[in-house]
Amino acid sequence: MSGTWGEYLTLSIFGESHGKCVGIVINGLGAGFELDLDFINKELQRRRPGLAELYSSTRQEKDEFEILSGYFNHRTTGAPLTCVIWNQDPKSEDYDEIKGIIRPGHADYTAKIKYSGFNDYRGGGHFSGRLTAPLVLAGAIAKQILQIRNVTIGSHILSIGEIKGESFNPVQIEPNILQQLTEQKFPTLDQELATVMKEKLAKVRKEQDSVGGVVETAIVGLPAGLGSPFFDSMESKLAHLLFSIPAVKGVEFGAGFAITQMQGSEANDEFALHGDRVVTVTNHSGGIQGGITNGMPVLFRTAFKPTPSIAKNQKTVDLEKMEELEISIKGRHDVCIVPRAVPVVEAVAAIAVLDLMLEKDGNEWIK
Amino acid sequence: MSGTWGEYLTLSIFGESHGKCVGIVINGLGAGFELDLDFINKELQRRRPGLAELYSSTRQEKDEFEILSGYFNHRTTGAPLTCVIWNQDPKSEDYDEIKGIIRPGHADYTAKIKYSGFNDYRGGGHFSGRLTAPLVLAGAIAKQILQIRNVTIGSHILSIGEIKGESFNPVQIEPNILQQLTEQKFPTLDQELATVMKEKLAKVRKEQDSVGGVVETAIVGLPAGLGSPFFDSMESKLAHLLFSIPAVKGVEFGAGFAITQMQGSEANDEFALHGDRVVTVTNHSGGIQGGITNGMPVLFRTAFKPTPSIAKNQKTVDLEKMEELEISIKGRHDVCIVPRAVPVVEAVAAIAVLDLMLEKDGNEWIK
Amino acid sequence: MSGTWGEYLTLSIFGESHGKCVGIVINGLGAGFELDLDFINKELQRRRPGLAELYSSTRQEKDEFEILSGYFNHRTTGAPLTCVIWNQDPKSEDYDEIKGIIRPGHADYTAKIKYSGFNDYRGGGHFSGRLTAPLVLAGAIAKQILQIRNVTIGSHILSIGEIKGESFNPVQIEPNILQQLTEQKFPTLDQELATVMKEKLAKVRKEQDSVGGVVETAIVGLPAGLGSPFFDSMESKLAHLLFSIPAVKGVEFGAGFAITQMQGSEANDEFALHGDRVVTVTNHSGGIQGGITNGMPVLFRTAFKPTPSIAKNQKTVDLEKMEELEISIKGRHDVCIVPRAVPVVEAVAAIAVLDLMLEKDGNEWIK
Amino acid sequence: MSGTWGEYLTLSIFGESHGKCVGIVINGLGAGFELDLDFINKELQRRRPGLAELYSSTRQEKDEFEILSGYFNHRTTGAPLTCVIWNQDPKSEDYDEIKGIIRPGHADYTAKIKYSGFNDYRGGGHFSGRLTAPLVLAGAIAKQILQIRNVTIGSHILSIGEIKGESFNPVQIEPNILQQLTEQKFPTLDQELATVMKEKLAKVRKEQDSVGGVVETAIVGLPAGLGSPFFDSMESKLAHLLFSIPAVKGVEFGAGFAITQMQGSEANDEFALHGDRVVTVTNHSGGIQGGITNGMPVLFRTAFKPTPSIAKNQKTVDLEKMEELEISIKGRHDVCIVPRAVPVVEAVAAIAVLDLMLEKDGNEWIK
Repeated sequence: MSGTWGEYLTLSIFGESHGKCVGIVINGLGAGFELDLDFINKELQRRRPGLAELYSSTRQEKDEFEILSGYFNHRTTGAPLTCVIWNQDPKSEDYDEIKGIIRPGHADYTAKIKYSGFNDYRGGGHFSGRLTAPLVLAGAIAKQILQIRNVTIGSHILSIGEIKGESFNPVQIEPNILQQLTEQKFPTLDQELATVMKEKLAKVRKEQDSVGGVVETAIVGLPAGLGSPFFDSMESKLAHLLFSIPAVKGVEFGAGFAITQMQGSEANDEFALHGDRVVTVTNHSGGIQGGITNGMPVLFRTAFKPTPSIAKNQKTVDLEKMEELEISIKGRHDVCIVPRAVPVVEAVAAIAVLDLMLEKDGNEWIK
Repeated sequence: MSGTWGEYLTLSIFGESHGKCVGIVINGLGAGFELDLDFINKELQRRRPGLAELYSSTRQEKDEFEILSGYFNHRTTGAPLTCVIWNQDPKSEDYDEIKGIIRPGHADYTAKIKYSGFNDYRGGGHFSGRLTAPLVLAGAIAKQILQIRNVTIGSHILSIGEIKGESFNPVQIEPNILQQLTEQKFPTLDQELATVMKEKLAKVRKEQDSVGGVVETAIVGLPAGLGSPFFDSMESKLAHLLFSIPAVKGVEFGAGFAITQMQGSEANDEFALHGDRVVTVTNHSGGIQGGITNGMPVLFRTAFKPTPSIAKNQKTVDLEKMEELEISIKGRHDVCIVPRAVPVVEAVAAIAVLDLMLEKDGNEWIK
Repeated sequence: MSGTWGEYLTLSIFGESHGKCVGIVINGLGAGFELDLDFINKELQRRRPGLAELYSSTRQEKDEFEILSGYFNHRTTGAPLTCVIWNQDPKSEDYDEIKGIIRPGHADYTAKIKYSGFNDYRGGGHFSGRLTAPLVLAGAIAKQILQIRNVTIGSHILSIGEIKGESFNPVQIEPNILQQLTEQKFPTLDQELATVMKEKLAKVRKEQDSVGGVVETAIVGLPAGLGSPFFDSMESKLAHLLFSIPAVKGVEFGAGFAITQMQGSEANDEFALHGDRVVTVTNHSGGIQGGITNGMPVLFRTAFKPTPSIAKNQKTVDLEKMEELEISIKGRHDVCIVPRAVPVVEAVAAIAVLDLMLEKDGNEWIK
Repeated sequence: MSGTWGEYLTLSIFGESHGKCVGIVINGLGAGFELDLDFINKELQRRRPGLAELYSSTRQEKDEFEILSGYFNHRTTGAPLTCVIWNQDPKSEDYDEIKGIIRPGHADYTAKIKYSGFNDYRGGGHFSGRLTAPLVLAGAIAKQILQIRNVTIGSHILSIGEIKGESFNPVQIEPNILQQLTEQKFPTLDQELATVMKEKLAKVRKEQDSVGGVVETAIVGLPAGLGSPFFDSMESKLAHLLFSIPAVKGVEFGAGFAITQMQGSEANDEFALHGDRVVTVTNHSGGIQGGITNGMPVLFRTAFKPTPSIAKNQKTVDLEKMEELEISIKGRHDVCIVPRAVPVVEAVAAIAVLDLMLEKDGNEWIK
């Protein structure tokens, strides 16, 4: 099933870009947890288009959410929690004119084949990046619950195009640094880097083109012992959700692809004692061994392709006329989705971690 | 649950490295499918240790499998198919001496924490790479069934350490080339490259060290329309299983991390018509858009870390005495698991694809 | 998770009696199926309170549904279909006065324990019979899809209290009879019986009491071969959903509990040939053997307890004061929920059957 | 999938009556739980044929089990626990002669249709009652774990044919009474009743016929708060598994079908205080309200049809020749499966309860 996920925390996502709304049903949150609605809104604002004049779409959506069920007297009730974000500014006519034409890099063609042409094609329909808003919403709730356990998640933009910054120090990441990153619209570890990246984005925008990038994420405060070997490995859980985010084409943990160029004597994270605590001296494994957390920061990087909608001319096919043609995508589009993808990555990370925590501890601790 | 996977094709994996056996229960295969047992054996032999004197463990396991259920008169019966591979050559004493000591790069520590010290620690127990044998077995059956639909899966070793070859031509991959690759013990697209890689392995072995590498895999013959947006995307399904393979630290599709350095005008795969067929001119997306196959080859790369067991001295901790010490891992170990990992990667790819095919078409076509 | 169900067809139910709405997300319906909205409304009207002056609650709810997603140009899109029914007439004050008091026969006490008192207690909250409206809605869609395969589902009220009618003829049930039953507000096989039953209901109402009853349901037109041994038996699938309906306390298939008093020579359904067709001469098994349909009508009976809300005085406990007391439940309540339960039973039957059909045949046939 | 069940505790069942073995893989048991193998054997002996000369099959199977994985140093390891029971006394030739002929009351016909004739038909194959042995095995482990929480499960034979005993006192069931019942080969609440029932069985055996009956089961010591509204109701969980047991045709909770003849004022279980404890004065609901346990005994009855294999002549069809004929089933068969079904019913009850307990509390408490 495309729309449901999870074993202990379950999600059921729905909606379309230009339909009535996007939304999500969440099961397994436990009862009596007081939701910080401002925090949810803040997380949604991080993902929202139209804020960052330079690099983002100018579609105006307030992204205000409404809780339809599972919430009473400011707390979760234990019943399924349903949230929707109503669509306010859909300009469907932008899409009607290109109805028969499949946009390169988009799901227009594959959706048409899979759904025999019956899919809602307006603005990408159910395939739209707008569907990540309910993920951010669910993630914002998961993040709040994880705070009970002092788990903090944060990310920075590691690269935009060929402009690349430094990685987190894998063995030492302060929660408050992660926290500060989540408060930046364009989170980087280095402010100069941000300036260079934004110049790059401005340049790409002028070229009527788009560009991709990499988000690096850390989860700190995790206990050792979360996850399982094989099918519920921490990596499997996280990667499953990360690859559900539109535009993600790669995921790596710890040293990732670079570990393949190491020898074992370098790649292995040696163990040491910090007082009574077992730590690793390096963290090439990204805090996970045998699919299970070891108590060190969990680290991963997520690769996003360039926004497929570009004004530059591209060759494609009109499926109705079955002829080749050129198109230029009009409308409101991000030069680069990476800044807006940051909270989405963090959200699904929070969801995956909470699911594994519920497996281990049940849900009685959530109050 | 760590040990079960799948919605339409379900797997239940079990066993330990030095226990009685490793095995798997498979549901959803349909009835009346004639199993080619020789093919299953051939696939198991590809993964088996002890064959490749240079780069592999010398543990002697015939890896002969026994079907315990679901098989009658040479065909699947529709009931759960259970296979086991009995362990024949476990040398548990190798491990008894280091019982309290956690090996760097292994799951010894995380398993001990998660299972409160009750896990079977011998040879990695349930975390052992030996558990990939039942995955290969299930994959061999899935591959046979996929042949009904002319789907072919093949891989080559893209890199060993810093030695790196060329990728597949992403828009044009002949099934028979893939087929030939599966018949090579050390599959590379270029025979000279194989020589250089093997020299590298010999050198690393002399250094009592190990090394990682990258496997590149192609799936051809897939219809357009497999997979779904969000949680059952082709990428999510594949990545979930790939990250369940021990030692995998990265997965990328199509151009993968490199796509982040492209601009949209390059990254987007333009569409064209080949007669009546819609194709893409490039294949940076790896044959998947919106989580759904587009009929082009599905391409992905899987990063394996170096074998963690090395004879070189490493610092670690004895959890029983709670003191730091140095260890050298004795025993039979691979210098590099990449060659043996190739059939495992292909196996889980076949499993993921068959699961999505069963979703779409049910299982009546399997005969 | 309480709120999700299904493997091939998945449901995610949500909402509360006195919250904003009740609703459901449905995955797996396939794309391009034209929904008959009038039929959905008709099914919802069958379940709706306030219609049958005699025996039903007088709560005024129009039960008009709104489709939020997955529907475009009058057809399913293949994306998750979400429907809500907005609450219009909640009188929460009826419930506020008894907030601390647990009503006998209701889930007030168990909900309070499970959710630590954080559940929405108004009108039963998420436990309300009102949550069966989205089940009827999903079932109405499933019924339409099953019509493609000529599967018909219908029910009659077999008993109200001690007033009991005749069962279906288990070997011969005409689809059009089932069809006609679905068009009756008070479906019985015998009109005189209906009169007697209604007199009973009038009498019980005068006594400020309530009464239970049994619904008998038939599914005809099913192909042989649906269902599986063990965990996906047709009985397991149906019973799982039937026991999810509030107030159900028993389910039996075919001869049910009465079969325990037969000897094998009577209970076994002998086979015969009708031309080329294999039939059974009797149908004590209810059309299911080994968990799989045999092509005969599937027959089952569902036992409903009396409506727990009664005006008669009952002893109970005030959990806040921890003292015993007597209550009389005011408000709008059914004398007997059986007539309104009929479409609910049929709905979950349709859902279970469609799920098993999707397993067997995939979803490409739904257009 | 037919062969897997469960969300928190998962089962994967496999095997055939006349194949190599029957078995089960269990996930979710937690690590470090010391298994009482004698208890498992004792439970298996309760289900074993050949013990009760009068009413049971004389097939000689020792039903000795072997643990293949997940068990080390007498304790669960946290990895999947796999057990098999090897088949020792299959007389397949008994079945070969009737290969083309479908036995009334058996799954021969439905299996043939579903699996296109490729199923293992010998002795019922995967549909055999022998598959309940692994369920008993898994249940025996679940029972042991539930003892940590002082949960006790026991049953008695309520009826055989028309011979019917008294029910449990629904509000007061002593754990030691339940315990004693599990130690009787023919558990009844009244020893005279047992004598009459056995005379009935002797009479039916002489008639070359068989007979059904009802098992009544109680679960005591359950905390209030287990289960959920809707799809994970305690009733849904239990009924799903109970209807997976071959030959079950009805399941009812508490007063069951009889509650339909009560009025609400009688059916509602009034609440009272026993000191600080909230209890119900009656227990018509069977200890469950809104799908959730209320702390009173959980009570249910399971209806078993007569053994379908009888020596008496029955009409049926030869599917190969497509002609009608008469058969008399030779071989070793139970006159009545009810006595042997008792431990199976208890086993699945233990499994369902443990699954819901794992949902609530995680699995860290299992040691």
